[in-house]
Amino acid sequence: MSKNNKEFVKDITNIDENFAQWYTDIVLKAELADYTDVKGFVAIRPYGYAIWENIQNYADKKFKEHGVKNVSMPVLIPESLLNKEKAHVEGFAPEVAWVTMGGGEKLEERLCIRPTSETIFSTMYSKWLNSWRDLPYLYNQWCSVLRWEKETRPFLRSREFLWQEGHTIHETQEDAEQFTADMLEVYADLIENLLAIPVLKGRKTKKEQFAGADATYTVETLMHDGRALQGGTSHYLGQNFTKAFDIKFQNRNGESEYAYQTSWGISTRLIGAVIMAHGDNRGLKLPPYVAPIQVVIVPIAQEKENVLEEANKLYSKLASKFRTKLDDRDNYSAGYKFNDWEMRGVPVRIEMGPRDIENKQVVLVRRDNSEKIIVKMEELEEKLQELLDTIQKDMYNACKKRMEEKTTVALNMEELKKNLDENQGFVKTMWCGDQACEDKVKEVTGAPSRCIPFEQEHLSDTCVCCGKPAKTMVVWGRQY
Amino acid sequence: MSKNNKEFVKDITNIDENFAQWYTDIVLKAELADYTDVKGFVAIRPYGYAIWENIQNYADKKFKEHGVKNVSMPVLIPESLLNKEKAHVEGFAPEVAWVTMGGGEKLEERLCIRPTSETIFSTMYSKWLNSWRDLPYLYNQWCSVLRWEKETRPFLRSREFLWQEGHTIHETQEDAEQFTADMLEVYADLIENLLAIPVLKGRKTKKEQFAGADATYTVETLMHDGRALQGGTSHYLGQNFTKAFDIKFQNRNGESEYAYQTSWGISTRLIGAVIMAHGDNRGLKLPPYVAPIQVVIVPIAQEKENVLEEANKLYSKLASKFRTKLDDRDNYSAGYKFNDWEMRGVPVRIEMGPRDIENKQVVLVRRDNSEKIIVKMEELEEKLQELLDTIQKDMYNACKKRMEEKTTVALNMEELKKNLDENQGFVKTMWCGDQACEDKVKEVTGAPSRCIPFEQEHLSDTCVCCGKPAKTMVVWGRQY
Repeated sequence: MSKNNKEFVKDITNIDENFAQWYTDIVLKAELADYTDVKGFVAIRPYGYAIWENIQNYADKKFKEHGVKNVSMPVLIPESLLNKEKAHVEGFAPEVAWVTMGGGEKLEERLCIRPTSETIFSTMYSKWLNSWRDLPYLYNQWCSVLRWEKETRPFLRSREFLWQEGHTIHETQEDAEQFTADMLEVYADLIENLLAIPVLKGRKTKKEQFAGADATYTVETLMHDGRALQGGTSHYLGQNFTKAFDIKFQNRNGESEYAYQTSWGISTRLIGAVIMAHGDNRGLKLPPYVAPIQVVIVPIAQEKENVLEEANKLYSKLASKFRTKLDDRDNYSAGYKFNDWEMRGVPVRIEMGPRDIENKQVVLVRRDNSEKIIVKMEELEEKLQELLDTIQKDMYNACKKRMEEKTTVALNMEELKKNLDENQGFVKTMWCGDQACEDKVKEVTGAPSRCIPFEQEHLSDTCVCCGKPAKTMVVWGRQY
Repeated sequence: MSKNNKEFVKDITNIDENFAQWYTDIVLKAELADYTDVKGFVAIRPYGYAIWENIQNYADKKFKEHGVKNVSMPVLIPESLLNKEKAHVEGFAPEVAWVTMGGGEKLEERLCIRPTSETIFSTMYSKWLNSWRDLPYLYNQWCSVLRWEKETRPFLRSREFLWQEGHTIHETQEDAEQFTADMLEVYADLIENLLAIPVLKGRKTKKEQFAGADATYTVETLMHDGRALQGGTSHYLGQNFTKAFDIKFQNRNGESEYAYQTSWGISTRLIGAVIMAHGDNRGLKLPPYVAPIQVVIVPIAQEKENVLEEANKLYSKLASKFRTKLDDRDNYSAGYKFNDWEMRGVPVRIEMGPRDIENKQVVLVRRDNSEKIIVKMEELEEKLQELLDTIQKDMYNACKKRMEEKTTVALNMEELKKNLDENQGFVKTMWCGDQACEDKVKEVTGAPSRCIPFEQEHLSDTCVCCGKPAKTMVVWGRQY
């Protein structure tokens, strides 16, 4: 328990009055993360890290089903290596941290702490690749990366963050493009089915794509306040790095050819997304499948005979099947515990007092809608599983409904700005494809393009900005 | 496949002629790791990383059974923080890497990349700890750390290595000491039962203990050539850091008290230990429980009708129960594949040709002793599990026998030096407890003390070095 937490519910800022402060309150009070003595760096606490572990386990399994293998590459990248791919270095060099001293001596060449590892993977692929028979290389690493951001917020924008970065090379463009698409699907599935947040899938505009990519695909999400958050990206890198790093193989015709490359990643930003997509004025609200604690048992009148004993029995029964916690603290009231675990977002609370024990029943309370359900002990495990599944689905649907409500159409700049000012959300418009218009929209509305959705619609014939003939539908939204 | 590997077996140096070169050959040819463009940093390749994942899964489960929770702390430590505990900074400051630039600007205070994280954990514990009710904090992180070594070797001594570092604080000295001992037992169990390497358990001498510890406990192992390798260490830190970092709590009497602390770690060095404890002239030899591939199916005459089809069926049958690989490459002979998978240390090879298919049988070949066993298809799964268990046990016993043979007694300096020169290994001696004698032994024999074993014996009354009255039995050994 942190200090001075007796009145914690009062201490949470109202979610609709100041969402940013609400977010910080939740991160600190639910003990997900904390600030450290190193500016811009957070400590991820056990409760936050357990969410990340659940995300990791889910994603890692899916990656492995696609044949991906994990590796570990150096944390440091020599400056000369970072400089090899032109667009890449321009994108990343300004925000890296440099190591200039090691073992008491000045280094001959400074080394940056990886902001991402295309350069290192490419160097090794160049060394390893020989024949088309070796392909594909489907590698991934779970690690931390550094980007020297000016403004930081826990999980959302931190100088250090945890992520996975997948890096693959393929025999053909088609294979690489297919793998880029497959990994985007892994992300969409994870965010929708594990985190209960619906996604908008599409391709980033050239302006918004990864530094060094031919194409960046994205899954975009909407938060409580209607702002967008990029959930994960998958990049088709073409031959940009394979040419810069000389990643060649002998193809089936015996000719030397450059391989085709992808990279893709999700990060601890997703923890921020879970907080901001689902939380409310009582605190965090975690989807059951990703919740570190799915069920908390709070004994009622635990000082009475037999209550703690029965609560412990119940705990033993449930703990093998559900991520269960028994709160048997003797220095807090049951009411305090209710608030505490609601603030921490535990999906289901089980109340069990002397009368429940007598009646061979327990009371289940849903975090998402406060519903109370009395369940006979003999049916508990079955009902509990059903309830967790229901909560997961209902939380997804609630998010989906909000996303639909906050997705609007604009035919001109006035409508676009008005929709964003009133509603935030995703705004669909037609676009001529010209970056000048994209820049103008961002300047006027503060909203960058989110993506060119895979599911296109014909809203009108003309660009929302310049009025010239439109090429595609684009979605805009102010972002985290 | 790496380049030019057609004649790989010939390329492996004889293990008894040049063990160091044999080691490097195995690391590179079995594709466990590779050198990178960053001096002293390696890339851990999928086959090596999969060993690490198996170690991680085993250890992480045991830690969690002890109530340990995972967290993530910053990779960078401000110089002022590193300097807070005197012994600690003296031990680590000379070998850290310093970040001096971030986001294009010179930093006001330089930050080191963590060589270990006692200082960061201590800062956060100081912030979080309030009452005895909060204790213990049992936290761990899986991450990489940097130590700017001059001489490096893959896995054994690398400027960057992967590890876990556990950091706990407790209400009483007894609790902390017990936890230190518990974690040492986790390491002993892992190394003996997962890696099939017997350990010698004991306490490090003051000279060899961790910088900042009151006591360091260790599990020591012996490699093929008789040199020692420290498998894992668990430190009782007393109140050294809790006083330096002001980690106080209100105790049960309402008084303010400093907490008692531990830290403990194992690293990717253990992969080096597996290579060097078990390998032979045919290459790597992996214990079944930690092997990324436990069983490899090599079809015989795979161009003949039905062979690949049956091999695929067999693969599907086994893959859900064992970590199985089917080698259906059509550009290598079966004989080449036998050598290849032996070099990579796969515990069991299954040969399956037209005659085997006809007779509803397969041939199992053990990597550890080359024994061939013909097994009926209907009994395969059962026999295979038994065989893997047997190999695991036999490999442990073979290592145990070697350790016993290479453990000797010396009553004076001549014997000590002679035993080490002839035999390497662990040499037991009596010791007066004086560091001058410890320094002298190292100077004369090149062997530091390994530990003061928990299982003490009375070998004589006098110190091996000075001849004065002995206090304890110590074990010495030249090391990796």
